[in-house]
Amino acid sequence: MNLHKTNRLSLVEQVVLQIEELIESGKWSVGTKIPPEPVLMEELGVSRNTLREAIRALVHAGLLKTRQGDGTHVCSSSVLGAVLIKRIRQSTLVETLEVRHALEYQAALLAAHRRTDEDVKNISSHLNACEKAAADGDMEGYVRADLNLHLAIAEATHNGILIELYENMMEAIQLSVNSLMEITPQSDIYQETHHQMVEAIIEKDADQAVEAVNAYIKQYMKEVEQKWEERS
Amino acid sequence: MNLHKTNRLSLVEQVVLQIEELIESGKWSVGTKIPPEPVLMEELGVSRNTLREAIRALVHAGLLKTRQGDGTHVCSSSVLGAVLIKRIRQSTLVETLEVRHALEYQAALLAAHRRTDEDVKNISSHLNACEKAAADGDMEGYVRADLNLHLAIAEATHNGILIELYENMMEAIQLSVNSLMEITPQSDIYQETHHQMVEAIIEKDADQAVEAVNAYIKQYMKEVEQKWEERS
Repeated sequence: MNLHKTNRLSLVEQVVLQIEELIESGKWSVGTKIPPEPVLMEELGVSRNTLREAIRALVHAGLLKTRQGDGTHVCSSSVLGAVLIKRIRQSTLVETLEVRHALEYQAALLAAHRRTDEDVKNISSHLNACEKAAADGDMEGYVRADLNLHLAIAEATHNGILIELYENMMEAIQLSVNSLMEITPQSDIYQETHHQMVEAIIEKDADQAVEAVNAYIKQYMKEVEQKWEERS
Repeated sequence: MNLHKTNRLSLVEQVVLQIEELIESGKWSVGTKIPPEPVLMEELGVSRNTLREAIRALVHAGLLKTRQGDGTHVCSSSVLGAVLIKRIRQSTLVETLEVRHALEYQAALLAAHRRTDEDVKNISSHLNACEKAAADGDMEGYVRADLNLHLAIAEATHNGILIELYENMMEAIQLSVNSLMEITPQSDIYQETHHQMVEAIIEKDADQAVEAVNAYIKQYMKEVEQKWEERS
């Protein structure tokens, strides 16, 4: 009986790991519905009970969400992301901005030392997209381009755990904030400092790069505080 | 039948949340064995199946670990910590040190602005414990005091998410490294810079505080690289 238990546990665990892999690799993307039970049972070669238990473990981990009468959806692309979403929902904008500051400061510092030519191409194209969207007054496009720019800088650190932490943090921030507009700084200072940061990374000038990060975080913080005052 | 399913799911989820709460609050501490099945069934008022499913979800989340013939143990005090342990196991020492740098730099900066008198007392006592342990050649005591010092500085930021991220990261680093000695810097420079950092936080001198962080991380990195070279 003990042996049976172990086998069953490891079967559920195997299914959980396979589905996690599908989600983390993006084959099952956030927002989509997962295939129906009979299909998954057939493809995974497991019983209904085993499958259901695995799905429940993934619902608990925050990767899947089951809606009554509407099937099961993917709601986060990684376990780390799901944990951070829960945590960030309980935080203030200032708190998350301070953590962003920590990660973006270090990202700019390391990127200035390690960026490859490939990284420079990547970073520059996202900066151009930012500036174009801002000039066109395309707010949604600007938010997306700004996120991509920061992710490209994180990638230029070539530090796997920093990249993953930053990506998940940003995904969590995006998903936990109701109005993106509300947290997007609009001033020219923000644009200027981003331009300076990118130039410094390209020139491998770490001091200048982190100074630019400090400047735009300071500006961002000022705008957050102003909006806070306007509300209260 | 659908109603029955929903009830059952929420029952498992309720048990999971209750046990998570026991673990995260420290009532069930890391390393201890959880009470036997009959006791938990009685106290929680649930069936064996419901309890087992909840335990399995917590094993999957990385909070509990079941050993054949040796019961179920608490192996991490939070879901965030468990995710970070998994991730840090796949990382190099340099990578985790760079993430520590990000968080400790920001912690020193914010602590210098926000530390209360209570924080100063806390931080100073842990620094004294560090210096005493170092003078006594008590390596284990030194590692513990050094960890407490950094946690006290993180707490002096009064930023909930930064504190939680840092605590979990440090717990994950401690649990994922086989030999603590191996990653503990031994030089006097490390001691001096910690002393400088604490004094700067007390004096509310943020520039000096972050300069000290940069200095000890640099020293730490140098020792890690030297050990790496000696090995290869």
